[in-house]
Amino acid sequence: MEINGVKIRDTFAEGFGIKVTRMIVTAATKKLALIAATEATGYGTSVIGCPAEAGIDCYLDPSETPDGRPGYAIMICHGSKKKLDHELMERIGMGILTAPTTAVFNALDSEEVLKTGNKLKFFGDGFQEKLEIDGRTIHSIPIMSGDFLVESAFGFQDGVAGGNFFIMANSKMSALVAAEAAVDAIAGVEKVITPFPGGMVASGSKVGSNKYEFLGASTNEKMCVTLKDKVDSDIPDEVNGVMEIVIDGADEESVRAAMKAGIEAACTIDGVLEISAGNFDGKLGAYLINLHDLF
Amino acid sequence: MEINGVKIRDTFAEGFGIKVTRMIVTAATKKLALIAATEATGYGTSVIGCPAEAGIDCYLDPSETPDGRPGYAIMICHGSKKKLDHELMERIGMGILTAPTTAVFNALDSEEVLKTGNKLKFFGDGFQEKLEIDGRTIHSIPIMSGDFLVESAFGFQDGVAGGNFFIMANSKMSALVAAEAAVDAIAGVEKVITPFPGGMVASGSKVGSNKYEFLGASTNEKMCVTLKDKVDSDIPDEVNGVMEIVIDGADEESVRAAMKAGIEAACTIDGVLEISAGNFDGKLGAYLINLHDLF
Amino acid sequence: MEINGVKIRDTFAEGFGIKVTRMIVTAATKKLALIAATEATGYGTSVIGCPAEAGIDCYLDPSETPDGRPGYAIMICHGSKKKLDHELMERIGMGILTAPTTAVFNALDSEEVLKTGNKLKFFGDGFQEKLEIDGRTIHSIPIMSGDFLVESAFGFQDGVAGGNFFIMANSKMSALVAAEAAVDAIAGVEKVITPFPGGMVASGSKVGSNKYEFLGASTNEKMCVTLKDKVDSDIPDEVNGVMEIVIDGADEESVRAAMKAGIEAACTIDGVLEISAGNFDGKLGAYLINLHDLF
Amino acid sequence: MEINGVKIRDTFAEGFGIKVTRMIVTAATKKLALIAATEATGYGTSVIGCPAEAGIDCYLDPSETPDGRPGYAIMICHGSKKKLDHELMERIGMGILTAPTTAVFNALDSEEVLKTGNKLKFFGDGFQEKLEIDGRTIHSIPIMSGDFLVESAFGFQDGVAGGNFFIMANSKMSALVAAEAAVDAIAGVEKVITPFPGGMVASGSKVGSNKYEFLGASTNEKMCVTLKDKVDSDIPDEVNGVMEIVIDGADEESVRAAMKAGIEAACTIDGVLEISAGNFDGKLGAYLINLHDLF
Repeated sequence: MEINGVKIRDTFAEGFGIKVTRMIVTAATKKLALIAATEATGYGTSVIGCPAEAGIDCYLDPSETPDGRPGYAIMICHGSKKKLDHELMERIGMGILTAPTTAVFNALDSEEVLKTGNKLKFFGDGFQEKLEIDGRTIHSIPIMSGDFLVESAFGFQDGVAGGNFFIMANSKMSALVAAEAAVDAIAGVEKVITPFPGGMVASGSKVGSNKYEFLGASTNEKMCVTLKDKVDSDIPDEVNGVMEIVIDGADEESVRAAMKAGIEAACTIDGVLEISAGNFDGKLGAYLINLHDLF
Repeated sequence: MEINGVKIRDTFAEGFGIKVTRMIVTAATKKLALIAATEATGYGTSVIGCPAEAGIDCYLDPSETPDGRPGYAIMICHGSKKKLDHELMERIGMGILTAPTTAVFNALDSEEVLKTGNKLKFFGDGFQEKLEIDGRTIHSIPIMSGDFLVESAFGFQDGVAGGNFFIMANSKMSALVAAEAAVDAIAGVEKVITPFPGGMVASGSKVGSNKYEFLGASTNEKMCVTLKDKVDSDIPDEVNGVMEIVIDGADEESVRAAMKAGIEAACTIDGVLEISAGNFDGKLGAYLINLHDLF
Repeated sequence: MEINGVKIRDTFAEGFGIKVTRMIVTAATKKLALIAATEATGYGTSVIGCPAEAGIDCYLDPSETPDGRPGYAIMICHGSKKKLDHELMERIGMGILTAPTTAVFNALDSEEVLKTGNKLKFFGDGFQEKLEIDGRTIHSIPIMSGDFLVESAFGFQDGVAGGNFFIMANSKMSALVAAEAAVDAIAGVEKVITPFPGGMVASGSKVGSNKYEFLGASTNEKMCVTLKDKVDSDIPDEVNGVMEIVIDGADEESVRAAMKAGIEAACTIDGVLEISAGNFDGKLGAYLINLHDLF
Repeated sequence: MEINGVKIRDTFAEGFGIKVTRMIVTAATKKLALIAATEATGYGTSVIGCPAEAGIDCYLDPSETPDGRPGYAIMICHGSKKKLDHELMERIGMGILTAPTTAVFNALDSEEVLKTGNKLKFFGDGFQEKLEIDGRTIHSIPIMSGDFLVESAFGFQDGVAGGNFFIMANSKMSALVAAEAAVDAIAGVEKVITPFPGGMVASGSKVGSNKYEFLGASTNEKMCVTLKDKVDSDIPDEVNGVMEIVIDGADEESVRAAMKAGIEAACTIDGVLEISAGNFDGKLGAYLINLHDLF
């Protein structure tokens, strides 16, 4: 199968279950909303080493937010409900409440909820007030610069982590620009994030290590461009640049839409030769997404 | 005392000891260096709730970095050496190693060091190499997109957390713009970060709570503009906007320089009326920085 | 009439006829598209002194552009068809053709057209080719870095220049932040631009001059905050900050939608007291847009 | 000659004389200064089709500007003194005076001057005032949002246009990323601009045309990557991507420093194979800058 002359390998991405929250951060201006959204979702590429997987989903025009101000939809994800609860508390409390003019609204309905706002309200030391905005229960907490608004409860649901694809190109920089193009396109798909830096993954890993017993993960030497001539490489001869895109989504459908948009975008970039995907032979993850089935 | 017609209160900021690291993140382009620096320093406003205090110190021109590429100096801070060690490992390993074309160099000489690079090298699964660049010991780790370079050891030293000042203005937005101006000016001072979102603190807190025994900290109601008429407020009559700037630095001298630059910048903004600072009567922190002594 | 406690004056904005073009600039990545769109629309605040009025309308996701790449809709406007023709030729030829990986497509259907692409094609010196993309006639011009694509003809129509409103606030900075919020909201309305720097107008002018006969326009002293106590000012007592938003649109409907969105956004900002608009008693412009009629 | 394994051709760049102005635009915040600087320097890639060549030289910290606020040094250039005078008047009057909180200071001393501020002051309609700031004669002009400050006179000097080099790489995207890296590095050199979009030139031209007598310039087919197999190409076999950097500077020394910094930066990018430069056999330009002499 080919898209725009680029070979799409007959393989699949293997994704994992993860608990997903999605909320809307608004502020007086687009710039202020972005500042808060960025702080709250930083240090969140992978739960392998970060306290959560987190990222900005998309920008929302004032006409699309509960309080008519510019906002960003963000997602914070973790496999453990308890840790997710902690992360929402701290990422909202330390990264959004502390930012000027912000408010945070739930953007994911679910039966079971995390009562982040209901707990954060005590920071108001008795001066907090309960409001209703857009049919939602909101706590207004007086802070130095004004009042911080936070929704009482945030929904969470079983989503998908680790949706992915590899971009293989004729040079390192072709793969890099294609990865940027893919991230740009995925930004237009709702309910997904690309949690790695700038949305791009420069390093691929394998489970365990061939050499060091104490390692849980190590570089995937068969996919390293600079080791092409030193190992039994999985990289085709004409490929000299490889980048990966990793996607977390609120559901499989959104991850599939993101993979499709990202792959199509990567295939518009001169020098991209093949698209592949990462999996563990279907032995580890609950979601197997075949690349050919996306199109 | 007045600067540009703005009253500088005769008070002091009370800072605390914290262990500080400083490193240089370089990449192929300024944009790529910023992406990695941002991810690695996110979710790092205050150790009260974040795993570290972290931020970008300044941009460094290619002529100022060890490998002649554009870079950002970043700082990661924690009170505990053990936790600082963990944070460097994960913030570099998950936020910079995973970003395309990056390298990380130490930017703080000290006797005792954190051997982050020396540990991260094992990710190379035997394919890592030891290099010398600019007189430094560097580990080159093959990753999917190329080779990630990381210095073997990073210095840390006893620095200062919680340098601060308050901006009091005729309106909320005057305080907000003045805070932005202060952050812009502090960006020109080396060896300091303003770890809160966009460098600005919209919320001030007091130790403990008047109402809830289970709280370690709660809103400082006497400094909340929307509670001015409801409590025995510390906010002058004509003041309707308050913002705080919090500064962490590698040493007291740098924090003092940052406070000076930030206060002078805030005083250029129309509507700023008074500058104050936060302290605990000198009972909690090791560093007492009098505002009048700065000028 | 009040919105969110802000008085909306019973007055009208007076707009003028102008010829409007609208085109889509795409590139390999969002960033590259923005670079080209910015260069091509710079130095374009008002035809009083600039060669055209120009600006970015909105970002378009890859799914919304003719070639499936990220793009920006831009608008270039002038009262004279001949000058508009010249501006399209030079702004596309010098500002977009010269930028890497770009393409330009028409985004305004009309009977009469400007044959910009049909003229630019000769730059290809015989190596140009005619293509059909998305049902459009496109010229592919080989340049150093690849092939530049430009649609053969661009539509233009009679639009509206000078849609406007004034934001009056309790401080200069409240007016400034409210102007930024208004621009953010107007960005969500299609077929309009806010051509002044950052979308905001810091200076208002009157026709002619009281003092200098040689001047065609001079400062509107009755609306200058720093002259409030020196002249017979139009600024209310409690107002200390004034900013204007000026809007050009492809049609009156779009300008009205932009004024509505911008005013509503300004009214979310703390400290905004009144919204007014600029007119010449209806004697100069063809479009009279009453503020109260917008809501 | 080689740098980092990249061949530097034994050739020279041919530059032309141009009159250069340099000024500092300051504002309340870095962001506001950038907005004004960007508007005032847009639509300014080449005097072949643009009304001027213009660009941002560098950011200046508050400690480096005449009024202690963040600023950008910008340069506006033209071969004709009369046209340069016009461009300063309109680019400052329409692009900076109209932007909130700005001031403009001269940054180039010369005997002969352009009296831009002295003429712009009449916009104040009698309410303007003359000030002295930092030893400079400044006109304060009341505008709607406050007072606009502009220096009375701006220096200009005979500078250099068209300093340049070509980046030749193994793929289009390698050349593109290398061009971005070069622009990043040149940003650290004072008194120069890279006036093309994002600092990069995607199109190279030759004087006249082989096919169309009416053309003054046309594509340089011998340097077009997509025509490599169709013409007697100047592009080496292994090169598949070409980008050009064009530099204007206040003097030859600055242009040489910029070329050096830019070439060294391009040579850090994986896939760059050769650096060349554009000239007209020394027949047209006054400045011949040999690449080998730079190092």
